Amino acid sequence: MKKVFVIGIGPGDEKNMTAFAKEALEKSDYICGYTVYVDLVKSLYPQKPVISTGMRQEAQRCELALRTASENNTVSVICSGDSGVYGMASLIYELWANNSNYSDIEIEIVSGVTAATSGSAVLGAALSHDFAVVSLSDLLTPWELIEKRLHAVSSADFCIAIYNPCSKKRNDYLQKACDIILKYKKTETVCGWVRNIGRDGEEYRVLTLGELKDEKLDMFSTVFIGNEYTKILNGKMVTPRGYKIN
Amino acid sequence: MKKVFVIGIGPGDEKNMTAFAKEALEKSDYICGYTVYVDLVKSLYPQKPVISTGMRQEAQRCELALRTASENNTVSVICSGDSGVYGMASLIYELWANNSNYSDIEIEIVSGVTAATSGSAVLGAALSHDFAVVSLSDLLTPWELIEKRLHAVSSADFCIAIYNPCSKKRNDYLQKACDIILKYKKTETVCGWVRNIGRDGEEYRVLTLGELKDEKLDMFSTVFIGNEYTKILNGKMVTPRGYKIN
Repeated sequence: MKKVFVIGIGPGDEKNMTAFAKEALEKSDYICGYTVYVDLVKSLYPQKPVISTGMRQEAQRCELALRTASENNTVSVICSGDSGVYGMASLIYELWANNSNYSDIEIEIVSGVTAATSGSAVLGAALSHDFAVVSLSDLLTPWELIEKRLHAVSSADFCIAIYNPCSKKRNDYLQKACDIILKYKKTETVCGWVRNIGRDGEEYRVLTLGELKDEKLDMFSTVFIGNEYTKILNGKMVTPRGYKIN
Repeated sequence: MKKVFVIGIGPGDEKNMTAFAKEALEKSDYICGYTVYVDLVKSLYPQKPVISTGMRQEAQRCELALRTASENNTVSVICSGDSGVYGMASLIYELWANNSNYSDIEIEIVSGVTAATSGSAVLGAALSHDFAVVSLSDLLTPWELIEKRLHAVSSADFCIAIYNPCSKKRNDYLQKACDIILKYKKTETVCGWVRNIGRDGEEYRVLTLGELKDEKLDMFSTVFIGNEYTKILNGKMVTPRGYKIN
């Protein structure tokens, strides 16, 4: 069958995968993805051949997945977290629409648990009200637009989940983001970060926005900014939904 | 064991649940939740007693879950989608911190696939760039704040996932929201909605922002607004991540 599944495998541990994701992997002839993510599922399906390329070769990897599917195969493209949120779903659709040889390939997107929700659960209930998801990676997005978006959501007191808060090349981006957010939110605003969600070495910290500004994080971290009502309850970051409590 | 799991069961179909969610349900002595959601999992665990109350009795229901747990039980509080996003996780933490009788109850939040990502997958890849999640329900949030948030995220060209777009009492809220969004985004902006995600009767439509304004939806629908780059590819709503395609 000519088919590409684009699968969100969740934050890491196999138990965070949905049954749909597992079923799709089982039906697949090939597994395709960035090596770090393939390693998270490879042990479940050691017999399945892997289509893998290095980091930042997303377009080549997805092209290879579609070409393999066009040769009458079922291919699972796997993404960490959800398959849509900064994942490969849109790229697969774009490459598919771009080449008429691929038009008879069936595409199915299988969603997964994204870091905004899995990280929020580690911290407590960080995002239980309106929230925005913003990536600080400027590889594909102009930094000016990222700044504009941070201004916008901070000014309307959204909770914010920040993906890709830093990397080796972008080690001051989180600080820059906090400087913008601090124009609108108080320095005592409750924040948190989670590293290696659902994987070995998972760790988290609940802290203030003022403290967050000076944290040294890495690309495996997700950052959470509270709204004005977010509080710390027994060490957990909790954003109330607004229910009255007697 | 005195324990409360707060579980996101995903959009509906059992196969959208994670293995962690199933494990937690299996470990539980009681299942607690709004009847509509309990019905989605009850058939899996027919022998487990159910703690249920009607709609809009969230605080009473969660209080009952904690009281039952304090009598040396494990209780699963189930939420549709994710347990944090407009779910019960924050309310459980608030009630837990509010009553010293509950202090020895262990709380564990199990995240699930939220409608923003599961609905995006049905439509194609609706949210593959920065996005905001906004609920139009003004039961717990002043409408003025909802409007302010819609202005903010529209002005910075976020993709937007709208939860609770309407109900019987609020049948013009989606129209009001579209009027605000149309101040910033073009009438041709690609949008979509999904009804009954992952359940019997799932349906979706990809349409323009101008058309969305006049759609009659219900509380089982989730609405997706694209950014300026969102396009329709073979009937699917696709927001590019920004990769260069040859």
